[in-house]
Amino acid sequence: MMHANRLADLRQRLQQQGLDAFIIPHDDEHLGEYIPPYAERLDWISGFNGSAGAAVVLAEQAAIFVDGRYTVQVRHQCDPTLFAFHHLINEPYLDWLAERLEGGARVGFDPRLHSQKWYQDADARLADQGINLVPMSHNPIDRLWHDRPAPGHHPASLLSQEYSGQHSEAKRHRIAETLAAGNIDAQLLTQAEPINWLLNIRGRDIPCLPVVLSFALLHRDGRVQLFADPDKFTDLELQAHCGQDVTLAPMDALEQALTELGRQGARVQLDPSTANAWSALVLSRAGAELIYGDDPCMLLKACKNPVEVHGSRAAHLRDGAAVCRFLAWLDRRLAEPNPEQEDEGTLADRLAACRRQSPEFVEPSFSTISALGPNAAMCHYHHVNGVPRRLGQDAIYLVDSGGQYLDGTTDITRTVAVGRPDDDMRKLFTLVLRGHIDLAQARFPAGTGGLQLDALARMPLWQQGYNFDHGTGHGVGHFLSVHEGPQRISPKGSMVPLTTGMIVSNEPGYYREDAFGIRCENLVVVQPAATDGDIPVFELETLTFVPFDRRLIDPTWLEPKHIAWLDDYHRQVWEKVSPQLDGEELDWLKQATRPL
Amino acid sequence: MMHANRLADLRQRLQQQGLDAFIIPHDDEHLGEYIPPYAERLDWISGFNGSAGAAVVLAEQAAIFVDGRYTVQVRHQCDPTLFAFHHLINEPYLDWLAERLEGGARVGFDPRLHSQKWYQDADARLADQGINLVPMSHNPIDRLWHDRPAPGHHPASLLSQEYSGQHSEAKRHRIAETLAAGNIDAQLLTQAEPINWLLNIRGRDIPCLPVVLSFALLHRDGRVQLFADPDKFTDLELQAHCGQDVTLAPMDALEQALTELGRQGARVQLDPSTANAWSALVLSRAGAELIYGDDPCMLLKACKNPVEVHGSRAAHLRDGAAVCRFLAWLDRRLAEPNPEQEDEGTLADRLAACRRQSPEFVEPSFSTISALGPNAAMCHYHHVNGVPRRLGQDAIYLVDSGGQYLDGTTDITRTVAVGRPDDDMRKLFTLVLRGHIDLAQARFPAGTGGLQLDALARMPLWQQGYNFDHGTGHGVGHFLSVHEGPQRISPKGSMVPLTTGMIVSNEPGYYREDAFGIRCENLVVVQPAATDGDIPVFELETLTFVPFDRRLIDPTWLEPKHIAWLDDYHRQVWEKVSPQLDGEELDWLKQATRPL
Repeated sequence: MMHANRLADLRQRLQQQGLDAFIIPHDDEHLGEYIPPYAERLDWISGFNGSAGAAVVLAEQAAIFVDGRYTVQVRHQCDPTLFAFHHLINEPYLDWLAERLEGGARVGFDPRLHSQKWYQDADARLADQGINLVPMSHNPIDRLWHDRPAPGHHPASLLSQEYSGQHSEAKRHRIAETLAAGNIDAQLLTQAEPINWLLNIRGRDIPCLPVVLSFALLHRDGRVQLFADPDKFTDLELQAHCGQDVTLAPMDALEQALTELGRQGARVQLDPSTANAWSALVLSRAGAELIYGDDPCMLLKACKNPVEVHGSRAAHLRDGAAVCRFLAWLDRRLAEPNPEQEDEGTLADRLAACRRQSPEFVEPSFSTISALGPNAAMCHYHHVNGVPRRLGQDAIYLVDSGGQYLDGTTDITRTVAVGRPDDDMRKLFTLVLRGHIDLAQARFPAGTGGLQLDALARMPLWQQGYNFDHGTGHGVGHFLSVHEGPQRISPKGSMVPLTTGMIVSNEPGYYREDAFGIRCENLVVVQPAATDGDIPVFELETLTFVPFDRRLIDPTWLEPKHIAWLDDYHRQVWEKVSPQLDGEELDWLKQATRPL
Repeated sequence: MMHANRLADLRQRLQQQGLDAFIIPHDDEHLGEYIPPYAERLDWISGFNGSAGAAVVLAEQAAIFVDGRYTVQVRHQCDPTLFAFHHLINEPYLDWLAERLEGGARVGFDPRLHSQKWYQDADARLADQGINLVPMSHNPIDRLWHDRPAPGHHPASLLSQEYSGQHSEAKRHRIAETLAAGNIDAQLLTQAEPINWLLNIRGRDIPCLPVVLSFALLHRDGRVQLFADPDKFTDLELQAHCGQDVTLAPMDALEQALTELGRQGARVQLDPSTANAWSALVLSRAGAELIYGDDPCMLLKACKNPVEVHGSRAAHLRDGAAVCRFLAWLDRRLAEPNPEQEDEGTLADRLAACRRQSPEFVEPSFSTISALGPNAAMCHYHHVNGVPRRLGQDAIYLVDSGGQYLDGTTDITRTVAVGRPDDDMRKLFTLVLRGHIDLAQARFPAGTGGLQLDALARMPLWQQGYNFDHGTGHGVGHFLSVHEGPQRISPKGSMVPLTTGMIVSNEPGYYREDAFGIRCENLVVVQPAATDGDIPVFELETLTFVPFDRRLIDPTWLEPKHIAWLDDYHRQVWEKVSPQLDGEELDWLKQATRPL
């Protein structure tokens, strides 16, 4: 009844405001990948708590739209008598709306929770049929949500140059120069990651993403106005850390700052795909000239400087030791009585405990995917959404996890034998690993985009008539988001050139529904390679050092060069990780890294 | 003086018409890759006869714009006191014009010789500065060019279903259905290749491109109005061949047909990138609604039907035998006294003579690139533009050539030893060949574009710090153009999915300036592959059968799988080509195809 009552309350409000419909996206005002609990409006109205989706509420009906990852989950979490279920991508909710509304209808939306680009496209789409899209000054859910969690008050922290490698002043003035060159007066920054990168600050506002939620204006003279909860910066010497030309004001002050820019007729740049429509409305109503362009922080943030690369290498060695301790424990545990006392949840907890032994460990970089047998065939499986599967009945186990460390972010998947893998599993594991190795060995000239390299990781599978339905690699931040752009290795991927310092994952996989799942994931960093040739080329330096499970490798599916790579990789794992282990764990590593 | 006088005459005409400038592109009204001699207006005004470029003539100055292929040639062919030289891509001629003209200036152009897209873009570009782009009803050069060659009167021919594999009626009605489904009344076809494909006709209007120059209107009921020189069809039963609903009228009648469509308020589709601006102007002035879309013939033409694939295979066997005869002769000639009596021209002539032995051979599919030593480092080298280099002084020879046969079009490059290749040449040849083999062995699922496969052919070079500065593969027609879209394997390439029946080249290379050039080119056809896997995948069936020169192969740069591919390929060459050879040529083939 809870959601029925909420829907009824919302409908009453909409009617009072003369609205025929209201759109509730998952996003918050920063439009990032993760949102804090107080922004879970979609969950509040529907019960659905996945990481993407939208609901649309009309006077007499409502629908929820989720993508392929969540078609099962939404059915568990939402009441079908309240919400019709639709596919977010294949059945766009604007089409659904347009089919149900007459010309002249008014569709409310909260412009803080949608991008400027969405607003422009949606407005044009609905205007075609005479339907009006109405930006609302207040979100009606916020008025109805009485037990809404308060925003957290986790203090911010200042990331020292020992970790960041570059003072905020240098970053700010470098970008300011490009703004000045483009005759742009100010850049609006709306996503937490670029702002935290720019100012060398971090926070705990979102689980797994160590940022202070904030907005910022970067001016053409390098000055920054930061809009964030000042309580988070109490006792911190922000200006001593960032420079005197960085000022702090509460989030609420953003509207006034945008209005002032507008009054000055300033040329303000924003990325229409990531900046919310509200900021664009405030700016243009006040008289600013909007310039649409990429957020200039993104590419600079993606290209880690030598200190960040050095830190990432160090974080990965610690993380590698933690994962090795876990895998050694897992093998011991399997040899002990009653392995079925362990389940996907206890395994994930044990892995987390191994990571917490490191003093530099801050938190996981995402929710661990701990998946036994058929559960691993679901790419976005999470054991907390059902009954965790018990150890002892399956042949293979997939564990995808990572950590946030002060000096870097990790992300690793290992697929290991926990029973008796058959020949088919070994064949497919080996084909996946072969694709991983082929990509790991790639070299490429300047200008090469991830889209051009993606097929390398798939070709061994493609040769045998297999494939996997996700990208091969995503960008990874430096003690920031485990998913970042603009670089990406994917068939739908980007032509943004891969260049020095970019960190990306290398994670081909294979998934057989109701049977098993395989993924081999290391992180790699783009670095210049030494050759005797004509032109400079880049190579992918592997950052992750944890053995691949030799019990799953069928060498008949490998060429000599793959075996040579594996033996060399395992030699490096031993060299780099063994000093951190001892006793049974060291013995385990010795066995796990011996030549094939 | 000749070009100075022509320029003076043109300037006088422009002044009489109140024009401040005139643009002379290389293109003719069909905007295809090749043009007939009577359309060489750029050559007439400037002396430059390359295959792409444009000149701009102002009252007091003039400039010619060519791309990187022609920067040397244009200096040889054009008088620098008459024309300034600029780069077609890097220094757009519209920018050059805009810098030199005042607001209110009038720039004349012949709308038949520019695409509708060019007109839209150029008009917007110049309007920014108040400069007017003036479509001219007559090209002033045509009034001045008194000894202009007449259009050829080569008769057309009707391509029997034995070669085409599909009756025109089936093709026309299949496309007409998509027009009707899109509520489009007619499709304007302006390029010769799709029209000749659609009607199963061929001609000799352009060297190397066996087409009848023509325009056509395809109506939503499948009817076609063909506009071409009726004399070319004398004694041919066009309607018996194509169907009663195909009518023929002179090229001049197109204007009236477009005007009639306009009067009916018809919705007429054209591709703004390939249809000339004149046709769009005529249509829209008469009242037609212009629909911009891809030419629907292009994708269907690219996917060869089984009869066309069968014909292409047969054409390649004949062509392979011709090239083998040539290579066998070349080896014999090198062993005889005075090889320096041969030069790049006599070698090309000998190869042409070998092809002419086949009764199905019609003409070359492009001008043979016959390049010795350093000349091969110029990708677009042609020996007729200078003094052909003599045999006997270089280590390697590159020959890129092809034939038009009634049942298919070929294109092959072989790089062969004609002296003593050093280790570096052998290393680079082997890396190029290895890339060729890696692409040849690719398999990929539906939806894969050429852009995703391009890196396979480059990776062996990239690994060692080398690259080549052209695409890896272009589409090839069936007894039509040796270059066709929309598929393409290239870093700038297309995401048009490669699918059954598409023919593409596989031609990685390496070029060392002033030293040597290497290219290994076969044609391949996309075909379904048999696997035991989960999903259907395609593979690339090789069509070309001529040995790769083992004297240039250094096996230390190959893996076992490459050697296995080569041995198998050479075994197939022997099987398929040996029945066509005898005597010394057969002995040569036996040696050339023995296992590595």
